[in-house]
Amino acid sequence: MSERKKILVTNDDGITAPGIAALVEVAKEFGEVLVVAPDSPQSGQGHAITIVDPLRLKKQDIFSGIESYACTGTPVDCVKLAKNVLLNDVKPDLCLSGINHGGNAGINILYSGTMSAAMEASIEGIPSIGFSLLNHTWKADFSASQEYARKIIAAVLNKELVEAKLLNVNIPDLPMSEIQGIKVCSQANARWVEDYKEGTDPRGGKYYWLAGNFVDSDPENHGGDVRALNTGYVSIVPSMYDLTRFEAIPELKYMESL
Amino acid sequence: MSERKKILVTNDDGITAPGIAALVEVAKEFGEVLVVAPDSPQSGQGHAITIVDPLRLKKQDIFSGIESYACTGTPVDCVKLAKNVLLNDVKPDLCLSGINHGGNAGINILYSGTMSAAMEASIEGIPSIGFSLLNHTWKADFSASQEYARKIIAAVLNKELVEAKLLNVNIPDLPMSEIQGIKVCSQANARWVEDYKEGTDPRGGKYYWLAGNFVDSDPENHGGDVRALNTGYVSIVPSMYDLTRFEAIPELKYMESL
Repeated sequence: MSERKKILVTNDDGITAPGIAALVEVAKEFGEVLVVAPDSPQSGQGHAITIVDPLRLKKQDIFSGIESYACTGTPVDCVKLAKNVLLNDVKPDLCLSGINHGGNAGINILYSGTMSAAMEASIEGIPSIGFSLLNHTWKADFSASQEYARKIIAAVLNKELVEAKLLNVNIPDLPMSEIQGIKVCSQANARWVEDYKEGTDPRGGKYYWLAGNFVDSDPENHGGDVRALNTGYVSIVPSMYDLTRFEAIPELKYMESL
Repeated sequence: MSERKKILVTNDDGITAPGIAALVEVAKEFGEVLVVAPDSPQSGQGHAITIVDPLRLKKQDIFSGIESYACTGTPVDCVKLAKNVLLNDVKPDLCLSGINHGGNAGINILYSGTMSAAMEASIEGIPSIGFSLLNHTWKADFSASQEYARKIIAAVLNKELVEAKLLNVNIPDLPMSEIQGIKVCSQANARWVEDYKEGTDPRGGKYYWLAGNFVDSDPENHGGDVRALNTGYVSIVPSMYDLTRFEAIPELKYMESL
């Protein structure tokens, strides 16, 4: 590419996570990178924003030659502050979020700070991609994820996508040689089935601690992202922020005469 | 109705908010009510969940004759705990969230703890309705909202809806006599345009505080919820948790050969 692109990078695991370093390394091949990421882990923050409290940005010197800030807020706050304060409302060409330590397939998109940050940028009309590797450990190997991120970012920057402004990309935890390729998918109907662990704290109070399993309720859905991942493919799901269930509007019309 | 229904009620303004009291008053006309709501305000929490910390439930005696609990977590945590711990995985017939002090039309559905709680219940297959009044003050008049909540709850309990399992209901801040009726709508492309207020804290640190205006980017969209509310109607938007942008899948298919 002749033109240098402006790319905003964020995540939800925090600015010191190896996953964001892996993404910055790829992003800087494509243009000028600005990093604004949480100063602490924000997994499970979904689309939360900070309303009551003030936010702070702390300039970092983590990524060589890359302007970067740690933010005291949520992933969505990072995107809002980047755009409004640091970029003076000038939109970047692309927003990248991740690489998340852990998968965000199926319904995880709703809980995911990684995907909510990407979605927030897409609300502003910025093409956005969230990347997640199906390995939640800090020492995960991001090399195959970087290869696929490179291909997908190049594709998005080279061809203006009309409908697909927000992509949820998940990468199986496999070496490059074992990944079968890319599948464009729908969001699988896969969700967490909770099983809270009950316990008693040192002061005798009862507590409940979130546990559970990720269950694919529709494993025969061959077009879903969970199945693609289970069979060794990188999944790409085009997502959106319009949650209207248009098919349901005719069914509800009778309510206008209640 | 002959059969007593089981109804779960939650909100995001906290269990002491007048809006949830107004909703409980209506809900108990339809069946047995269980209240599980946050012990502190949780506006803007979106679909956040508590992963790292344990959660607690405190039995309350706020609503006469109604089993109720304050929860230390987010609105989504309230729904998960209610279902898994208090209801032993037996689904209620209906989940109601609100009445929120403040509107949740347009894109606010993403940031809204009220709607995220309702959405969480819908993921479990529970028909769910979030109610929001366009008045954020504590002394808001919920009487017209109660009238409309009564009509809409009765309709949902009397007729099994196939597609519409999650409804986002907003009520204009008007007396009953001035409300024009109900409109079934799509989610307007209306969003917050941020304008962070910069300041300096007592220790000389710079901060940014979220401010801004809610702007309808598509005011000519006559089917959107923001316009319905602006013209005096109660808006009902059928929503969903499948964020797949199916229209974009063909456009992305070429990525499978990257």
